[in-house]
Amino acid sequence: MPPRDELRLRLYADFMSQPSRAVIIFSRCNKLPVEVQPVLIHKGETRSPAYLERNPLGKVPLLEDPGAACSATETSAGDGCFRLPESAAIMSYLSFKFPELVPEHWYPRSDPVRRALVDSALHWYQGNIRAGAMRLSFHKVIARRLGQQGDERVAADGLKTLQVALSGLQSYWLSGGARPFMTGTQPSAADLLCACELEQLIMLRTPDHGTCLGEIMAPYPVVQAWRQRVRDACEPHYSDVHTVLLKAAGVVLQPAKL
Amino acid sequence: MPPRDELRLRLYADFMSQPSRAVIIFSRCNKLPVEVQPVLIHKGETRSPAYLERNPLGKVPLLEDPGAACSATETSAGDGCFRLPESAAIMSYLSFKFPELVPEHWYPRSDPVRRALVDSALHWYQGNIRAGAMRLSFHKVIARRLGQQGDERVAADGLKTLQVALSGLQSYWLSGGARPFMTGTQPSAADLLCACELEQLIMLRTPDHGTCLGEIMAPYPVVQAWRQRVRDACEPHYSDVHTVLLKAAGVVLQPAKL
Repeated sequence: MPPRDELRLRLYADFMSQPSRAVIIFSRCNKLPVEVQPVLIHKGETRSPAYLERNPLGKVPLLEDPGAACSATETSAGDGCFRLPESAAIMSYLSFKFPELVPEHWYPRSDPVRRALVDSALHWYQGNIRAGAMRLSFHKVIARRLGQQGDERVAADGLKTLQVALSGLQSYWLSGGARPFMTGTQPSAADLLCACELEQLIMLRTPDHGTCLGEIMAPYPVVQAWRQRVRDACEPHYSDVHTVLLKAAGVVLQPAKL
Repeated sequence: MPPRDELRLRLYADFMSQPSRAVIIFSRCNKLPVEVQPVLIHKGETRSPAYLERNPLGKVPLLEDPGAACSATETSAGDGCFRLPESAAIMSYLSFKFPELVPEHWYPRSDPVRRALVDSALHWYQGNIRAGAMRLSFHKVIARRLGQQGDERVAADGLKTLQVALSGLQSYWLSGGARPFMTGTQPSAADLLCACELEQLIMLRTPDHGTCLGEIMAPYPVVQAWRQRVRDACEPHYSDVHTVLLKAAGVVLQPAKL
């Protein structure tokens, strides 16, 4: 039985946002009853009064669960609807909310050691892969598109952070190739977040950016093979969800197979 | 009965590292059987071959649990000892490992909504408070102490990130003062991490840094009051654990009360 409309979960997301894409792919791979509500960053929609009322942090993704037993009343907006920012927290919440739909490997519920490893990978992602890649793509490309000024030196610092992170992803998390995914033999929420973050660097493809995704990834063949594995494990959703990004980056898409 | 020596948990940590301090305070507040093993970053100890064998990422803190049922064999170093990097993951692991010692407010185990909120705050900390404060203190002070070159523009970008984060901490997480701690009426692991990160900025106190903690915090009175609450909730451990930092920053300590 599908959930009643007023109890359906809503995900406010932008297909151009790396963490938004990770949560959308996670939801589609696991057939979760989550409705995506587009909020377009480049049109200023994350800063609109209506959205800021939902999420005063002005960020996507945001999950709304009107059916949650909102015991944490002091953190709700007063309308009894539970609102949750932060992609990693959203995916772990969804894993516990739909245990019959989400296999344990995406976010382990029952084994505390495996859960700790995925938590560790999720926090590491934030402080390393995202800390590097996000500053790089923001200061090289996104700032300009939002009418702001990017800073080359901050971009360079982001690239340095990213290179150290890619090296850690290759040697530690993927164990030099011995481990297919970051925390085991199947993908987790952390693999998804890292992969979606790296995809964003396709935006660096034009020559005036001084660097591009292929160049950045070249020294990390283990990471490249893993990236393909993450993609394969999540098709067709992975490609579908990245269509908007590829178009924005000016990548010519192959016509869909008949 | 205290745990047998070979089964005792070990925390590799540096009192000069913000996340290390948060985990040490968490352990002491909850009287956890965790032994702290100092690893001094400024002496290069996180880069020593012996430590890199423990944690190839070369970071502190790291938790070692020789007694964990290490089901995730593919991620252990082969000696059966479970090793966990990332402070937030360590605290949530310890909360599940010692449910009889760690009150739910530090990291909720039974209520999925409350847990999701703390997870959200933990991930937000990493991408906002830490992303800003860490780059600011690193490029202003720490780099020089490690014999590296800091970059003023990266520091400035860090300060900007931090200011947006402090504003979000004040208005969203602390609800403009209506919520005593980030996710409710009692402190969580996220409050500890954020507070310890901000303490680090005491290193900016000398005039040639162009800014100092007091100046940075001045526009955020709600954050200042919260910071005092976090400290008060964790005494005497909070002050004890920060002694090394205060000495390094050249702060004259009050003689201990008799």
